[in-house]
Amino acid sequence: MTDSLDERITRSRTLLSDHDLAGLADLLSDLREHEVTRLLERLDADDRAVLFRLIEKDTALGVFESLDPPLRGELVDALRDDHVVALFEDLDPDDRVELLDELPASVARRLLSGLSDGERTLTAPMLGYPRGSVGRRMSPEYVRLRPDTTAAEALAAVRRDGRDAATVHVLPVADDTLVCTGSVTLGDVATAEPGVRVGDFVADAPTVTATTDAEVAARLCLEYRTAAVVVTDSERRVLGVLTVDTAARILEDAEDEDAARAGGSEPLRRPYLSTPVGTLVRSRVVWLLVLAVSAVLTVQVLEIFEDTLSAVVTLALFIPLLTGTGGNTGSQAATTVTRALAVGDVRTRDLGRVLFREVRVGASMGALLGALGFVVAGLVYDWHLGLVIGATLLAVCTIAAAVGGVMPLCAKAIGVDPAVFSTPFISTFCDATGLIVYFTIASAILDI
Amino acid sequence: MTDSLDERITRSRTLLSDHDLAGLADLLSDLREHEVTRLLERLDADDRAVLFRLIEKDTALGVFESLDPPLRGELVDALRDDHVVALFEDLDPDDRVELLDELPASVARRLLSGLSDGERTLTAPMLGYPRGSVGRRMSPEYVRLRPDTTAAEALAAVRRDGRDAATVHVLPVADDTLVCTGSVTLGDVATAEPGVRVGDFVADAPTVTATTDAEVAARLCLEYRTAAVVVTDSERRVLGVLTVDTAARILEDAEDEDAARAGGSEPLRRPYLSTPVGTLVRSRVVWLLVLAVSAVLTVQVLEIFEDTLSAVVTLALFIPLLTGTGGNTGSQAATTVTRALAVGDVRTRDLGRVLFREVRVGASMGALLGALGFVVAGLVYDWHLGLVIGATLLAVCTIAAAVGGVMPLCAKAIGVDPAVFSTPFISTFCDATGLIVYFTIASAILDI
Repeated sequence: MTDSLDERITRSRTLLSDHDLAGLADLLSDLREHEVTRLLERLDADDRAVLFRLIEKDTALGVFESLDPPLRGELVDALRDDHVVALFEDLDPDDRVELLDELPASVARRLLSGLSDGERTLTAPMLGYPRGSVGRRMSPEYVRLRPDTTAAEALAAVRRDGRDAATVHVLPVADDTLVCTGSVTLGDVATAEPGVRVGDFVADAPTVTATTDAEVAARLCLEYRTAAVVVTDSERRVLGVLTVDTAARILEDAEDEDAARAGGSEPLRRPYLSTPVGTLVRSRVVWLLVLAVSAVLTVQVLEIFEDTLSAVVTLALFIPLLTGTGGNTGSQAATTVTRALAVGDVRTRDLGRVLFREVRVGASMGALLGALGFVVAGLVYDWHLGLVIGATLLAVCTIAAAVGGVMPLCAKAIGVDPAVFSTPFISTFCDATGLIVYFTIASAILDI
Repeated sequence: MTDSLDERITRSRTLLSDHDLAGLADLLSDLREHEVTRLLERLDADDRAVLFRLIEKDTALGVFESLDPPLRGELVDALRDDHVVALFEDLDPDDRVELLDELPASVARRLLSGLSDGERTLTAPMLGYPRGSVGRRMSPEYVRLRPDTTAAEALAAVRRDGRDAATVHVLPVADDTLVCTGSVTLGDVATAEPGVRVGDFVADAPTVTATTDAEVAARLCLEYRTAAVVVTDSERRVLGVLTVDTAARILEDAEDEDAARAGGSEPLRRPYLSTPVGTLVRSRVVWLLVLAVSAVLTVQVLEIFEDTLSAVVTLALFIPLLTGTGGNTGSQAATTVTRALAVGDVRTRDLGRVLFREVRVGASMGALLGALGFVVAGLVYDWHLGLVIGATLLAVCTIAAAVGGVMPLCAKAIGVDPAVFSTPFISTFCDATGLIVYFTIASAILDI
């Protein structure tokens, strides 16, 4: 599959440059929706629009919905107005809201006013919820069951209304006031005796209010391993459902962001190979500058110790080794604690416990590395220098593990994404601290 | 919810130390399955076993299945034999196979021989598939439909056989030879007209063979946003299904591993706060040692240039700044490309394109940082030194971005997990290269 997709990309580029639209349509008809998406992602914006127009209508909708949001925005720019209006009408309300966020306000208004009444009634309330809330990502189309509905009647309701719903796998249960009493799964309904009432097997489903952060709601959906979370207003009246598909997508975007931040850059939100070099530079250069400016701290620390350095130039040889080891220890601790925070194993109030653990972990590793450093540097250079290196490794590992472990918790406590206090930041901080420790110990032991 | 869980943990510790079993049972009965799991994860092994015995049978099974594998192994050790045998009989076959992998061979054999014939028949073939393959993680319990079954008959089959199946949301379609012709979802069946035959709306479902890597199969399941992937033998005969729940779990473990490796440590496979300090040390110390030994390279590089250093000690002041910036640039590139590899945006054959992009990105950022470095170092020290710093920043950023971008692809090409060539590795490599560049440029410009 992988091979033939690559060949198809090459072939589609040839067909595009030959303007062979029939050949392209032929090529597209052989591909699954998912493969068409992959193909489009790898083309540049103009070719993407040409190809998109050739996809048959049913597939086009699915492909459009699975493209990264910025690519969708570009596509809307490149398509003819009537094509866009028709596409917009067919989108699911949650995809529609996501698309509107990508578009200039004037285009968004025009598209909204072109919607049919029914679809506008579904979409408009969602736009009232704050950005980043689950209210904008839920689907208002679901199949509601009453508690006194029987399993057989429930199946009939699914058959009648299910085609338009975002999911039929989770069915919110609510009486006529719409107050949610829980939900049942289609599996529950299908395996129940036909005469049993839904109220008799309704389960206490996880619900969220529409203003909840979308990422929190998505995590809940995946944690409870349910096909959808019911979204309600503050009085527990059902507004819609967040499906597991959307939840997975929300978390994937969040992970992109975390992965990027952990490496000291901003997320791309579009496929790497179709991202312009300028955008790549912008996604990284700010962090790189901030880090480089912080690193000026290390120059200043070293300036303080310039006399010590002049006296024993050999000390300079170990600077990258010592700062590197500190940075590595710090990033190990930070990665572990950030991950533990993300999956909920650790909370900010555990700061004391985390600190105590990381100090012990750091000191253990520092003792081992320090002993090694003492022996090796002692044998190669002299035992005094060995002692300086050994003692510095012990101190640096302990401090770095403690700082690396505690930083993500501090970030979280002050409301900053822990991934922002990323590995590179901790490295820079540990570099400066490590240098102070190193030269202080060196001055003392070598008596400079 | 978060708060009360913390209070409950404190209360359960008090009750445990008071041996108040009735109080504990009372406390547990108030909690959802998911909260019980969280509570157990935060206790130590002995308390966990005491509490686990008090959970009612239905909840206990679900809690057991959602614990991290090493905790399950410990629990089996701590429980009475008849309790374990009963629990083992009730587990789903895939959870059973996962548990067996955690246990000593003798215990595994005893448990297997205690199984009922029916369950042993389901479990034994799965144990024949290689470790890490989807054959060990699939569920052999599914509802199969024939192509000529009607929608109404399909619903009846689900009602009859669905309770024991791992999922009723995806129903493999196969004739009596068991050769898979695709699958339908329960939603398709429930929204179809009762008289329509399954063969008329069967969809070309993603299938995998049982020997496929479990992570590959799990990614396919999530990529196709399906509730289950059908697992077949090499002749496309249906063997079982990999449910999205299991797929999510497999990918979560894989992410744990990637996140840990990216920070230079091994994954813990259990909650951070219940991991002994010794285990934390072991998960990190090997990588830290390997990195420290690699960093000895930087000492050797600096030794070569010791005369240059003695002549101009000021050069030493910039070592951490320059190596740090190189390391940061490299890790930005590596993170972006590793992520792009993981989500399939980039493949190993794209090496040339990645290299070309990263060289341009690195050179752009290096030009900017270099210009800044030139001006600042020129003003503060002198213009010759400014030129050295500026030129080094340009060279180091370009090299680091290229190395950082290409390393994950090389790792993948030789069959190594790209996350293993982690940020710390790239930093160390860039440190050594950066120092060579720095002192070569310094020697030339300062004419030492």
